[in-house]
Amino acid sequence: MWDVAEELKAMLVFAEHRYYGESLPFGADSFKDSRHLNFLTSEQALADFAELIKHLRRTIPGVEDQPVIAIGGSYGGMLAAWFRMKYPHAVVGALAASAPIWQFEDLVPCDTFMKIVTTDFRRSGPNCAESIRRSWDAINRLSVAGSGLQWLTQTLHLCDPLTLEDIPRFKEWISETWVNLAMMDYPYESSFMQPLPAWPIKVVCQYLKNPNVSDLLLLQNIFQALNVYYNYSGQAKCLNISETATSNLGILGWSYQACTEMVMPFCANGIDDMFEPFLWNLKQFSDECFSQWGVRPRPSWIITQYGGKNISSHSNIVFSNGDLDPWSGGGVTKDISATLVAITIAEGAHHLDLRANSAYDPASVLRARSLEVQHMKQWIRDFHSHARRQR
Amino acid sequence: MWDVAEELKAMLVFAEHRYYGESLPFGADSFKDSRHLNFLTSEQALADFAELIKHLRRTIPGVEDQPVIAIGGSYGGMLAAWFRMKYPHAVVGALAASAPIWQFEDLVPCDTFMKIVTTDFRRSGPNCAESIRRSWDAINRLSVAGSGLQWLTQTLHLCDPLTLEDIPRFKEWISETWVNLAMMDYPYESSFMQPLPAWPIKVVCQYLKNPNVSDLLLLQNIFQALNVYYNYSGQAKCLNISETATSNLGILGWSYQACTEMVMPFCANGIDDMFEPFLWNLKQFSDECFSQWGVRPRPSWIITQYGGKNISSHSNIVFSNGDLDPWSGGGVTKDISATLVAITIAEGAHHLDLRANSAYDPASVLRARSLEVQHMKQWIRDFHSHARRQR
Repeated sequence: MWDVAEELKAMLVFAEHRYYGESLPFGADSFKDSRHLNFLTSEQALADFAELIKHLRRTIPGVEDQPVIAIGGSYGGMLAAWFRMKYPHAVVGALAASAPIWQFEDLVPCDTFMKIVTTDFRRSGPNCAESIRRSWDAINRLSVAGSGLQWLTQTLHLCDPLTLEDIPRFKEWISETWVNLAMMDYPYESSFMQPLPAWPIKVVCQYLKNPNVSDLLLLQNIFQALNVYYNYSGQAKCLNISETATSNLGILGWSYQACTEMVMPFCANGIDDMFEPFLWNLKQFSDECFSQWGVRPRPSWIITQYGGKNISSHSNIVFSNGDLDPWSGGGVTKDISATLVAITIAEGAHHLDLRANSAYDPASVLRARSLEVQHMKQWIRDFHSHARRQR
Repeated sequence: MWDVAEELKAMLVFAEHRYYGESLPFGADSFKDSRHLNFLTSEQALADFAELIKHLRRTIPGVEDQPVIAIGGSYGGMLAAWFRMKYPHAVVGALAASAPIWQFEDLVPCDTFMKIVTTDFRRSGPNCAESIRRSWDAINRLSVAGSGLQWLTQTLHLCDPLTLEDIPRFKEWISETWVNLAMMDYPYESSFMQPLPAWPIKVVCQYLKNPNVSDLLLLQNIFQALNVYYNYSGQAKCLNISETATSNLGILGWSYQACTEMVMPFCANGIDDMFEPFLWNLKQFSDECFSQWGVRPRPSWIITQYGGKNISSHSNIVFSNGDLDPWSGGGVTKDISATLVAITIAEGAHHLDLRANSAYDPASVLRARSLEVQHMKQWIRDFHSHARRQR
């Protein structure tokens, strides 16, 4: 983005979403109860951006009549797309990178996400996905065997002793690790959720070449693989199954949003994917939300609000997706119209295109960035020629 | 609308805006304080319409995949236009009749409205506007003269004795009467705010032919003119200066909305119009809002939210306006694009086009209705051909 801003001679503004980082509307009370969380919605965030742009126009010399482009990745990409949809007068266009705007209700099958994760592992090493698939039963067997829990605790260097009640969370933690690796499968070293080597799934898969081994050996291999994610630095004393990311990405705020608007159904069947099968259970999810936040989700609201797949009357949005990114399953990966355009990045993980230029960038992301800039320039040209006609 | 619905073989649904009529979210407490009024916003109304359409689609057989058109007049017309702008996936188009979406901040001069009222009176009879213009000073003079207040009370058959403190409100009440007559200047008898004769301003102006008379005679004539509005039925025992309309049009709800989002600047200069000059005073308005509702207006929010004059990226909205309607001054009266279309009705008052067919309909409104139906049919055709391409 820095490079693109320079090329476009543009100002780059990072807006912090309310309730994230330091933007706490009620200070320390912001997460106290649902009353204080009432202002944490995507609509409110979009309204904030509209006000911010107006404020910048009023206060920064030379900015008043300049075109603005919305850019974001992941949830930020959804917001970028929705902002152009809801406030087309405020921005000439939007780049929505890895924005799963269709990961809601039944717009896409709930197992799409886990299938893409699995495909990444399948392609990154022989028997890799199969080894992972077999690990769940190995864990199940060990967890009820004599000293199995103790063995797992020691072998995986867990910070806290594993109990039988921990097992569901333990398997979830491992699953999340594979998911995060799929999102972060970048062609170079990175440190988004954890410090990682280049093409981390390939590194992980080097430990998972043989699924036909004993439970103990399989899980020793799994530990080596997990270590790529949790201990690339070699500094980790132990692994903590309540954490999958080092940095605070606003887990609390997102948890509330997931319990209100951002209801994204996920599932796995264990056949087309390498995960232990699980269903999407809205009832159970809703009950958990109610006990945690005192609210219940409105699973169809995002579609009512933002149109679901019926968005063809909008314009000037580029949706970019990496084929390696599990979120691409809920993204827009085919052109909707001449000005609602999909760009796919064959070798891209989660919003690779928004990351800084690198010597290791694959050709696919270079092409994507170049196309994105072409669209931005076109929006700006259209804006200026429209402004000229208005005079 | 009934006729158009029949022609289009359409279902006609009247949605009641929350906080109006029987739609009180907190029952009797709905207007208790600003906390209970927090849900009275145009955004919330639009969201309600989106939910309502989804509900109708789910519950009424045969409706699921049918195109929907938003239709409204006045504030309802603003909502129709804004609904198509914000929820273009929910409706194929909108007919926004007499919708003053630009009567905000400085999008149009604040005296436009009163100028149009004045033009209506000027055209409806010789010296009519001039007689009204002179009446303000006549009232001012009488109100400080010996038995002037008593004379005014008797001559105008007021229900309550006029005091010196009442005079500003008294003049406002008369002004509002002229404004309402301009809005309701229909070519046939009607009873929207009050029972009225056909072309009521012409009737009013028969009493106001001579401005060069004594204050007493001028105000006797004004009383005859006011009586056209307040006593067409001949049943009124006295005139009540705290009321200008018979039916409850949701004065309370609108007063709150005017104090939050719907901040419409009005003014008069007494030269280009027939009113006593007054300025638009946001500070004073804001203080009144604060004392009445405990809120302060956000005068630029509607423009931030709905784009002001920068709405060209939207589509499929017909804006209709009557040239006699003072609200046309804040309306869209020129085409913005091939699909954002303005229709003007030379002989039309406030949303004449939405009223039932009448033998007295002027040619201009017949033409307008026919154009409106043409656009609606085009939207429906486009919708079906788009749906066919999707299959």
